[in-house]
Amino acid sequence: MSVCEKYFPDEPTEPKLVTAFPGPKSKDAVASLDKVFDARPVYFVADYEKSSGNYIVDVDGNAYLDVYAQIASIPLGYNNPALVEVAKSDKMTRAIIDRPALGNFPGKDTEEIISELLKVAPKGQDKIWSGLSGADANELAFKAAFMWYQAKKRGYASTFSEAENESVMKNQAPGSPELAILSFERAFHGRLFASASTTCSKPIHKLDLPSFKWPKAQFPSYAYPLEANEESNKKEDERCLAIVEDLLKNWNVPIAAILIEPIQSEGGDNHASNAFFQGLRDLTLKYGSLLIIDEVQTGVGATGKFWAHEHFNITPAPDMVTFSKKFQSAGYYFHDPEIIPNVAYRQFNTWCGDPARMILAGAIGQEVVKHNLAERAAQVGDYLYGKLETLFGKYSELITDLRGKNRATFIAWSFKKPELRNKFLNDMKSVGINIGGCAEDSVRLRPTLVFEEKHADILVAGIEKILSGY
Amino acid sequence: MSVCEKYFPDEPTEPKLVTAFPGPKSKDAVASLDKVFDARPVYFVADYEKSSGNYIVDVDGNAYLDVYAQIASIPLGYNNPALVEVAKSDKMTRAIIDRPALGNFPGKDTEEIISELLKVAPKGQDKIWSGLSGADANELAFKAAFMWYQAKKRGYASTFSEAENESVMKNQAPGSPELAILSFERAFHGRLFASASTTCSKPIHKLDLPSFKWPKAQFPSYAYPLEANEESNKKEDERCLAIVEDLLKNWNVPIAAILIEPIQSEGGDNHASNAFFQGLRDLTLKYGSLLIIDEVQTGVGATGKFWAHEHFNITPAPDMVTFSKKFQSAGYYFHDPEIIPNVAYRQFNTWCGDPARMILAGAIGQEVVKHNLAERAAQVGDYLYGKLETLFGKYSELITDLRGKNRATFIAWSFKKPELRNKFLNDMKSVGINIGGCAEDSVRLRPTLVFEEKHADILVAGIEKILSGY
Repeated sequence: MSVCEKYFPDEPTEPKLVTAFPGPKSKDAVASLDKVFDARPVYFVADYEKSSGNYIVDVDGNAYLDVYAQIASIPLGYNNPALVEVAKSDKMTRAIIDRPALGNFPGKDTEEIISELLKVAPKGQDKIWSGLSGADANELAFKAAFMWYQAKKRGYASTFSEAENESVMKNQAPGSPELAILSFERAFHGRLFASASTTCSKPIHKLDLPSFKWPKAQFPSYAYPLEANEESNKKEDERCLAIVEDLLKNWNVPIAAILIEPIQSEGGDNHASNAFFQGLRDLTLKYGSLLIIDEVQTGVGATGKFWAHEHFNITPAPDMVTFSKKFQSAGYYFHDPEIIPNVAYRQFNTWCGDPARMILAGAIGQEVVKHNLAERAAQVGDYLYGKLETLFGKYSELITDLRGKNRATFIAWSFKKPELRNKFLNDMKSVGINIGGCAEDSVRLRPTLVFEEKHADILVAGIEKILSGY
Repeated sequence: MSVCEKYFPDEPTEPKLVTAFPGPKSKDAVASLDKVFDARPVYFVADYEKSSGNYIVDVDGNAYLDVYAQIASIPLGYNNPALVEVAKSDKMTRAIIDRPALGNFPGKDTEEIISELLKVAPKGQDKIWSGLSGADANELAFKAAFMWYQAKKRGYASTFSEAENESVMKNQAPGSPELAILSFERAFHGRLFASASTTCSKPIHKLDLPSFKWPKAQFPSYAYPLEANEESNKKEDERCLAIVEDLLKNWNVPIAAILIEPIQSEGGDNHASNAFFQGLRDLTLKYGSLLIIDEVQTGVGATGKFWAHEHFNITPAPDMVTFSKKFQSAGYYFHDPEIIPNVAYRQFNTWCGDPARMILAGAIGQEVVKHNLAERAAQVGDYLYGKLETLFGKYSELITDLRGKNRATFIAWSFKKPELRNKFLNDMKSVGINIGGCAEDSVRLRPTLVFEEKHADILVAGIEKILSGY
């Protein structure tokens, strides 16, 4: 019996459509919700009570195979019984109702809660700082990076100068210095002000927001299939690394850290080679910056390893690794004690994360390990990739750049005519599949970790049915 | 039977100390925790299972009367049975394990969850946008303010210019404009980058962080007691309002919004008059800015009204009211449809808040209303204020500026010798009371909403015991 069958004996065996999309009850519910909440981006209103495993059910009773999974954030399927048990535990109840100011009054179970997250830490990492969302995790990492950079500059003193203490209250240097985080074109790292300053995938994410004038390098744009374009893709790596080095040397303010996704997700499922990532690591060491890997979307098994950057064997290990989404909790892993600020209360806030969400993350991590779900995702992904490669061979006038080989189910492709992409995402609902896009022309697969070969078959058949009508 | 007795029949009747502070088990637990988490700011490690009502119990078995309550964030006492019931409900379980991307796939209970929060909305507010922490709530409000300001400037067009779309990807104007939020000296609004740019209470909150160069006005500094200083305090209001007006007129970039706490909390429990707040409202209308009230620490009954700014009768109602802490959820209330951005996906992120925390907030709100806990806090606060006034009359060489009359238990006072303040906070542990400070010289009371006269008696006796030794 497969893990999915064990978890979800009652999962639907196929999509079930009882109304057109969106259904009348969903439409009514959206109209009503819109009076109190901005419901314009709503696709449909879900009935989570009836959803199960890989299937999300809407209020009209339609059951969709879900390969988008709440923007890549449901790890183990809807209503996973192992997580129900955790959610019903007394430990969880206390974490919900007695939410501590974790930095001041941790509970007797805090160390254990954090240790569970460390059991699945990326290779080389052994400490954690906790936050609340992907954007928050990245900005907390920025804070750590800036404090680290300035500590080094002032020779690791445990005090601050009078000039620093006075100027910072006016948002002026030297207390509030001009420093930058280097990110990449097409990157997505969140939508708060500092994180939005590093995000560079679509104008809509940040129009009208004041920003930090931080630099953007270029992320490699590879030619596909990779096997046939090794030489030119290697040159592309070199071109992009040269841009990074130029910015590290010549940008008008010091760059405290480089921030990068292992696979640019929102920005189009853009991949880069092991050599490119090692090249970045080497440059950060050469120029005295930190390397922050944003695993918000790629982490927790989705690419066939628990953390996607583990595919690259970056040496030495990255300085910080941020997480959120499938982990249901957020924060960053790190290992260098120098990344802990010189005095207490600098990396601090009232809650310092949410133990309720951290307990859940610990349980998710243990389930992934116990059931080898990253390895299973790799198997299922290989199966699915093969089927898609064959299928898209028949539709090469429509589809290009199939991506994500050897990256489990973290698969994407592009439409040659970008205007067909949105139509495709919508049309897939008519075959009972909930699927998401990235960039302007691409489709990204982000199923749960209990997505199996039988689901892949339904997905591929659904794609073929839609493409055959174009 | 009082509400506290009904909720907590087993609450300790007085503090119980079985070890010196901190106890040996707590010390060991801190040392162990510090290996995986920055434990330097930890006061003691708590046993939340054994904590009850107004008493927090540590791992050594010491029971402290808690008038700090997780930095002002525990609303209804530890292990409140009404909240246990909510935490154990199937609705909560689903919110925890099937966390939706709320903007795309809300659940069938989402509207109801939000409507519960709207039942306790500040007067004049009827919509909500949800976030995850106080800093996040404020920054989401900033985003809304900047989008509103620019929408007005471009005549409410539904599209953006090519120049805006292109420049924003380089973090440049016009797509990323120079705009500011005006806040006040001694303010605290959070520690992310934009929120830290508005925070101005202590250097430690923001040293080494790049910041937006946003202006700070001056918050009134009143002479106490207020009754004896009406004339000079009125002049102080006028002086401070003149500074605000000057900044609105002359600051080098446009000010999209004024951000202010009803009572500056972290910055010293600084109060201002109804006239000052109405003056701010008038100035925002005159100069075309928004007024954002930060109720993160003051909200949810603590000052004797559900929202502290309701004491001021600001007319028209503020444009946005942010919340977190005692509500256990975060976000902002608003009412003007123009504060909803012109197109979808601008005020957006993966989770758009956390329904689990929103369900809890709804339940907290209903409990506060059902048991008249804001009014009860006002009664208890009046009782406590009177006792403290009498007590501090005897210690006028030590204590000054008792504050918070008619603000329920939201009471503070200052030490004439600031160096005595930290000693006092620490010494209070020796009489079994957990109490917090604000600014450099002040003590702030932030008990739960089930803090009653009997607890006030224990608190006052404890304070007297410590002061009598100075």
